[in-house]
Amino acid sequence: MDEQDINERHRARMQRKKEVVDQKIASARRDAGVLLVNTGNGKGKSSSAFGMAIRALGHGMKVGVVQFIKGAKPTGEELFLRRFPDEVSFHAMGEGYTWETQDRERDIAAAQRAWDKARGFLADASVGLVVLDELNIALKYRYLNVQQVIADLRARPPMQHVVVTGRAAPPELIEAADTVTEMQLVRHAFAAGIAAQPGVEW
Amino acid sequence: MDEQDINERHRARMQRKKEVVDQKIASARRDAGVLLVNTGNGKGKSSSAFGMAIRALGHGMKVGVVQFIKGAKPTGEELFLRRFPDEVSFHAMGEGYTWETQDRERDIAAAQRAWDKARGFLADASVGLVVLDELNIALKYRYLNVQQVIADLRARPPMQHVVVTGRAAPPELIEAADTVTEMQLVRHAFAAGIAAQPGVEW
Repeated sequence: MDEQDINERHRARMQRKKEVVDQKIASARRDAGVLLVNTGNGKGKSSSAFGMAIRALGHGMKVGVVQFIKGAKPTGEELFLRRFPDEVSFHAMGEGYTWETQDRERDIAAAQRAWDKARGFLADASVGLVVLDELNIALKYRYLNVQQVIADLRARPPMQHVVVTGRAAPPELIEAADTVTEMQLVRHAFAAGIAAQPGVEW
Repeated sequence: MDEQDINERHRARMQRKKEVVDQKIASARRDAGVLLVNTGNGKGKSSSAFGMAIRALGHGMKVGVVQFIKGAKPTGEELFLRRFPDEVSFHAMGEGYTWETQDRERDIAAAQRAWDKARGFLADASVGLVVLDELNIALKYRYLNVQQVIADLRARPPMQHVVVTGRAAPPELIEAADTVTEMQLVRHAFAAGIAAQPGVEW
């Protein structure tokens, strides 16, 4: 098969593919706020949420961030997003992972304070995207009531997007979400002895 | 079991967990540039790369971005990151997905131009993070030679991080990477008829 045949076959295949893709897009035509959940053991759950944050900022939306576990030390995302106080309201309200604090009552109190902050965003239609980072961890340890959380999420403004991150998302939340991704660990640099690098992991 | 017992059991379990986590972290102590690959059919591959971009910016690093497929219309990430020309060098060099262009020779030429731009970043130690968005698509369709791409990636400055995104990453690239995540599709809002929303998908 010569080069011209390859190119022609490619064109025909891509034309068929375009018809399938176009049909899919045409059938998804409703505008609505999306509830996303990023879960699984692989890397990319929080970073994907912060990538959405800059997409939202690029489209002129306001962004509210609540970090449920992180907060003990400032991360790159916090250092950067705090440069835009008019556009981003950033709240790192955790005190470290629960195996760091080892104090369940303190964790519950911190999670409840963080959820109160989240509810403020979920009641404010001027906030286009709400990032609830590591909320799944707080739900997994039952620091928060999942039914209450879902009720508050459902009551939010209809065009507001929300992204929830963290391992082990509860089945009830997965059921309630519009878009769910499981970040599957294929390989991690930790296993090769590389420490958590700034700009990559935090 | 009363509340005090629950709290004590929690503390003991978290103490054991902390020992495991601390040991893992202690054994990963080498600093190095990390090559990451985000692949799979789920949402979050590109957004995770752009979340890393803001982490890197928060730590004072410079970021280079090459988009291999996107470029036909400006995305939220492009609109936002172009606000920081001293910190981010942004190049959207695609002409749309290959099923949009339907022209293999044009796609190959565009991919080669984009790779030339990427090689410039990969030869510049002042760039802390290089985002190669949708490179996997260009490799899947063999618009670029995977061995040449891997050789250029391996020759980069030792502390430079690179993140490659796109479905169907080739096995050779997965083998060469330090951290690989497969974004698995659990559910997508398209299926419920919700169109691609700004701030979420682009």
